Amino acid sequence: MTRSGRVVLVLGGARSGKSSFAEKLSGETGLNRHYVATGRAFDAEMEERILRHQDDRGTGWITHETPLNLTANLRSIDSDDVVILVDCLTLWVTNLMMAEADISSASEGLLSYLRDTASTVILVSNEVGLGIVPDNRMARDFRDHAGRLHQAIAAVADDVFFVAAGLPLKMKG
Amino acid sequence: MTRSGRVVLVLGGARSGKSSFAEKLSGETGLNRHYVATGRAFDAEMEERILRHQDDRGTGWITHETPLNLTANLRSIDSDDVVILVDCLTLWVTNLMMAEADISSASEGLLSYLRDTASTVILVSNEVGLGIVPDNRMARDFRDHAGRLHQAIAAVADDVFFVAAGLPLKMKG
Amino acid sequence: MTRSGRVVLVLGGARSGKSSFAEKLSGETGLNRHYVATGRAFDAEMEERILRHQDDRGTGWITHETPLNLTANLRSIDSDDVVILVDCLTLWVTNLMMAEADISSASEGLLSYLRDTASTVILVSNEVGLGIVPDNRMARDFRDHAGRLHQAIAAVADDVFFVAAGLPLKMKG
Repeated sequence: MTRSGRVVLVLGGARSGKSSFAEKLSGETGLNRHYVATGRAFDAEMEERILRHQDDRGTGWITHETPLNLTANLRSIDSDDVVILVDCLTLWVTNLMMAEADISSASEGLLSYLRDTASTVILVSNEVGLGIVPDNRMARDFRDHAGRLHQAIAAVADDVFFVAAGLPLKMKG
Repeated sequence: MTRSGRVVLVLGGARSGKSSFAEKLSGETGLNRHYVATGRAFDAEMEERILRHQDDRGTGWITHETPLNLTANLRSIDSDDVVILVDCLTLWVTNLMMAEADISSASEGLLSYLRDTASTVILVSNEVGLGIVPDNRMARDFRDHAGRLHQAIAAVADDVFFVAAGLPLKMKG
Repeated sequence: MTRSGRVVLVLGGARSGKSSFAEKLSGETGLNRHYVATGRAFDAEMEERILRHQDDRGTGWITHETPLNLTANLRSIDSDDVVILVDCLTLWVTNLMMAEADISSASEGLLSYLRDTASTVILVSNEVGLGIVPDNRMARDFRDHAGRLHQAIAAVADDVFFVAAGLPLKMKG
């Protein structure tokens, strides 16, 4: 790695406070803040969730929406004076599955960018593998893809946090 | 906060040993022990689970059953010579949802009590947000309510533990 | 306990990297490596998962397949110059449930062996209790059996790890 930037992975469950924690970390860097949203509003419920997140985040962010072309978007922003908050990886994996994209190659592209980023990149993702094995194959495949991506990113990350009830637990760094 | 008491949050999965750990903490205080059960026996399985819990707990407890009016009940017991074990918050949230009660206002009431309690209050709750996104809206709403409540209580708590396989991990305190 | 060996429990979610971590621990002991697989290939997907695991593991292992008679198998290998990797306990519990075996007595047999093992035994298991309560009774019973077994083994283990995103968190030891 010839990275001058920094990579942080923030894992947590649903409504664990992982996004708020990642936003706080972003603010503490003092860098110019970019928010890269992977979510797409498929329905009213999703739209409501996205709007609530925007509201929580407040102003001072440059927002990008990138359901699929995450890495290209990150490369276009990349600079040593920015912090990029990606929220979240599990939605990106979902979008890639929906689009029947090649997930290994998309993941490898992201990892390759992270290995030599100039930016501070904070990636938020849902831990989804701690419940009962899901009934349907697609959900099992999704758990596998998400889990593998988390392991690969954690391996190259400077810091990894697990957030529960709004409290961060440092796993690495 | 003008609290003279103490607030402890114990989070964990199903059969993680969180209740036993909370009971052990309660015993160690040397205070008079009150057990506030939020569970209701809807069916034989639930009744069996409640009886098993009572059995595990042993004697020496004053037991209260309060599926809905948790905060009023806590206020009526409140005293600096008691420890109150609330088991569990997720069942309380379930009961509030079933009763179509206003969950934000009920949560705010509980938080307001916790901010100035004279008692040692130990609250047990299930972490439910670490599996696959549930299919149905009600389960997703439940995860949101539970997650938000956990974050809010963790923010005012003195100590927060995450229990897995009977082993407590201190997240705060 | 009159144990001369060592007992290690490795818990984690699906695709958390728990097996790889347990394999690394096994290799570090420098002992002769035995791999005890509890999984059975019911279908093509399961077969694929088993083959991928074998592939990840590499050579240098003596492999045993024991969907049900785990303890008898462990006793037959037991020796102070071996490390035994059991992967995984949740599949064993599933197999016992399918076979309508007496799970308490099977668990007690395993615990009794672990209390006086001469081997280094590393047990891998899935944490499955951190999602929404499952709809069906069998899945709830499975969570109960798995959770109780984890607590009992953690109580006798020298070391307990919780693995997320490939990173081990030491819970005990």
